[in-house]
Amino acid sequence: MANESAPAAEPDPLLRLLLDGEPRTRNQLMDLTGLARSTVTGRLEVLLAQEYVAPYEAAESTGGRPPARFRFNPSARQVLAADVGATHLTVALTDLSGLIIDSVTTPHNIAEGPETVLAELAAHGHRLLGNGRLAGTGVGLPGPVEHLTGRPNHPPIMPGWDSYDVVGRLSREFAGPVLVDNDVNLMALGEHTGRYAEVEHLLFVKVATGIGAGVISGGRLHRGAQGAAGDIGHIQAPGHTELCRCGNTGCLEAIASAAAIAARLRAAGLPAETSQDVVELIRAGNPIATQAVRQAGREIGTVLAACVSLLNPSVIVIGGSLSQAGDSLLAGIREAIYARSLPLATTALQVVASGTGRDAPLRGAAAMVQQYVLGL
Amino acid sequence: MANESAPAAEPDPLLRLLLDGEPRTRNQLMDLTGLARSTVTGRLEVLLAQEYVAPYEAAESTGGRPPARFRFNPSARQVLAADVGATHLTVALTDLSGLIIDSVTTPHNIAEGPETVLAELAAHGHRLLGNGRLAGTGVGLPGPVEHLTGRPNHPPIMPGWDSYDVVGRLSREFAGPVLVDNDVNLMALGEHTGRYAEVEHLLFVKVATGIGAGVISGGRLHRGAQGAAGDIGHIQAPGHTELCRCGNTGCLEAIASAAAIAARLRAAGLPAETSQDVVELIRAGNPIATQAVRQAGREIGTVLAACVSLLNPSVIVIGGSLSQAGDSLLAGIREAIYARSLPLATTALQVVASGTGRDAPLRGAAAMVQQYVLGL
Repeated sequence: MANESAPAAEPDPLLRLLLDGEPRTRNQLMDLTGLARSTVTGRLEVLLAQEYVAPYEAAESTGGRPPARFRFNPSARQVLAADVGATHLTVALTDLSGLIIDSVTTPHNIAEGPETVLAELAAHGHRLLGNGRLAGTGVGLPGPVEHLTGRPNHPPIMPGWDSYDVVGRLSREFAGPVLVDNDVNLMALGEHTGRYAEVEHLLFVKVATGIGAGVISGGRLHRGAQGAAGDIGHIQAPGHTELCRCGNTGCLEAIASAAAIAARLRAAGLPAETSQDVVELIRAGNPIATQAVRQAGREIGTVLAACVSLLNPSVIVIGGSLSQAGDSLLAGIREAIYARSLPLATTALQVVASGTGRDAPLRGAAAMVQQYVLGL
Repeated sequence: MANESAPAAEPDPLLRLLLDGEPRTRNQLMDLTGLARSTVTGRLEVLLAQEYVAPYEAAESTGGRPPARFRFNPSARQVLAADVGATHLTVALTDLSGLIIDSVTTPHNIAEGPETVLAELAAHGHRLLGNGRLAGTGVGLPGPVEHLTGRPNHPPIMPGWDSYDVVGRLSREFAGPVLVDNDVNLMALGEHTGRYAEVEHLLFVKVATGIGAGVISGGRLHRGAQGAAGDIGHIQAPGHTELCRCGNTGCLEAIASAAAIAARLRAAGLPAETSQDVVELIRAGNPIATQAVRQAGREIGTVLAACVSLLNPSVIVIGGSLSQAGDSLLAGIREAIYARSLPLATTALQVVASGTGRDAPLRGAAAMVQQYVLGL
C-alpha cells in the first residue's frame, strides 16, 4: 500500500472522543457526540470488533452493577516506526498511542543505498515484531520525499535513493500500509502530538547539518502539493550571496546551518568538522563559536520572521543537533523574529527549544501511521 | 454571536456529499457514505426538517414510481455578504451556494468610522432582506481582524475602527451569526470556493495600495493563531531598506505596492496618484510605468518564492487592482519565483491572474457563512 493523502478510514466521532484515554458510558457518548442511541450502539459494536475500543472495568464499585464503560485500546495494534538517519538507523515497535515498546539502534551509512539499508530496517522490524497485529509501518528519511508516492526526490545526502520505491520494498516485508515522509515533517508531527497537541498552528525548525521545517496548520501536518513544504533552508537570507549546494546563492542553509558554521570556524583555525564539534566548542565556552551560532540564529530568525508574517503560528519549536548548543541559537532567533514581525503576530508567540529530542522522528512516524489507520 | 474558530455544527457526511448539487437516492447515500440505513434515514429527516435538503422531482419517468431522490437546497437560507472597502461599500444577498440574489454598492469613506459605516451597511441589508430565513452575515474589512473576536486590530487605513465590536453592532440588526474577516482572506476564500475548489494548497495575493495574502492549506483558510496570517506586505524584501509605514525598513509593501510604484512614477514626473492611475499609464503603453510594475513583480516574486519553499502550494492567484495592469506584474512575479524556488516545489505550480475580480470578497464572505452554518 502506498502513501496516500486521504486517510484510510472516515474519522469515527466516538473513536476521536475516546482517544483521550477517558472511559465513558454509552449515555456519555450519546451526550458528547449528539448521536442517536442506535448509532452509538452500532458504532461501538464495530469498534469493539476491531478492538480499537475495549470495555473498561472500574476498580471501585458503589454497589449494584455500574453501567458499562468503554475506552480506547492502544494495544489493539502495533506500529513499526523507523528513523533512517545519515549515520544511524533506529527501528521501534510502538502501540497505537505512540508508546515505544521496544527499539533497536545501529550505526549505518545511508550512502550504502536503499537495498542494503532497507534490508537492515526489515531485519530489525522482524526481530521486534511479536504476536501483535501490525497497524502499519512509518518511515522517516533524511531528504525530500514526494508525498503521493513515498519516493525520495533528489535527496542530496542519499546517493542511490532517488525515486526508489521504499513503499513497495517494505510492503513485501510487512502487513498494513507503509508510509514514508522526510524526518523534519515527522519531527514536527512528533513534537505536535507529544507536547503541543492543543496547538493549532506550529512551526518546527530543524537546525543541523542542513536546515528544514515542518508546518502544522489547523492541527494537521501541512505537506504541500508535492510534499515539499517546509523547505526553508533554501529561502534567500536577505543580504547574502554565498553559493549554496542547490546552485542558488544566499540560501539560509549556506549561511546558518551547522555545516556553514563549522566551515567558518575552521577558517578561523578552530577544530570543527561536524555539528557535534560546534556544539562542543560552545559548551567549552569558545567565544568565536558562540558568536557564530548567535549570528546564525539571527539569520534563521530573519527568515522565520517571514514565516511568522505568512502563517502566524503560536509556537515555533527549534530542534536538530545545533539546538543542543545552549541558548545562543535560540537568543539569536528570538532577537530577529521580534525585530521583524508585526505586533499582532507575536502577541502570544512562543519560541522554544525542542523537548522530545532524538525520539521525535520515531514518535512522528508512529503518529503518522496512527492518524492514517484511525482516519484522523 | 461572535466570530469563532470552531464551526457551529459537526459536519454532516450526507450534507457534505450533497453539496455538489447532484440528487441521490437513499441507497446511493448509504453506498457512498458507508452509513447504515437507519442512520441515513435519521439524518435525512433532520436535514429535510432544516430544509438544507429537499426531495428532488425527476423530470422524466421510466414508468412506475421511481425511488425518492434528495439534493442540497441552496435556497434554504439567505446570507448577507458585505464588502467594506476604503471608498465603496457593497452589500449583497446570496443563497447558500453563494449565488448573488441582489446587491447594492454605494461610495463611502471608511474613515467616517464604524458607527456611520455599519449603520449604512445595516440599512442596505434591511432593504435587501426579503422573507427568506437568514443564515448569517459575513463582513470583509480592509485591515487586520483578530479572528476570535472579529474586531479590527490597529487597521492602518481605518481610523476609529481599532477594537470596535463589529460583531456586537451587527448582531443587534440581523439574526444568526455575524462573521468578520479581512478582505484578503475573503478574496482567497472566494477564489478557492469559486474556481479552485479541488485545490488543496493555494495562495491568493492582493497587490493594490497595500500587499497582502490569503493562505488555503488542506482546502481550508489558514488564519493563524490571531488571524494575522498572510501578512506578506511586511516581509523584508532582500536588499531593500526603504522605510515602511509600519516602522520597519525594507518591507515588501514599501517597495512593490501600487502606492510605492505611484510614488516612484511621480518622482519621474508622471501623473500617478492611485493604483488606477498606474494601471492607466500601463494601458497607455508608458514604458517607465511598465518597467516599474515588472520590477515590482520581481520583488513580490522573491518574497513569494520564500512562501513557495515554506508551503509548496499548487496555485498562486494574483489579484487586487494592480493585477489589472496586464502581464507585466505576473511576468515579473513568475520570473522571480522560478529563479528562486527548488524544482520539486514548482513542478506543477500555476501562477495565474484572479478571475473573480470585484466579486471575490463577497463570494468569500458568503462562503465563510456557509461553511460556518453547515459545519464544513
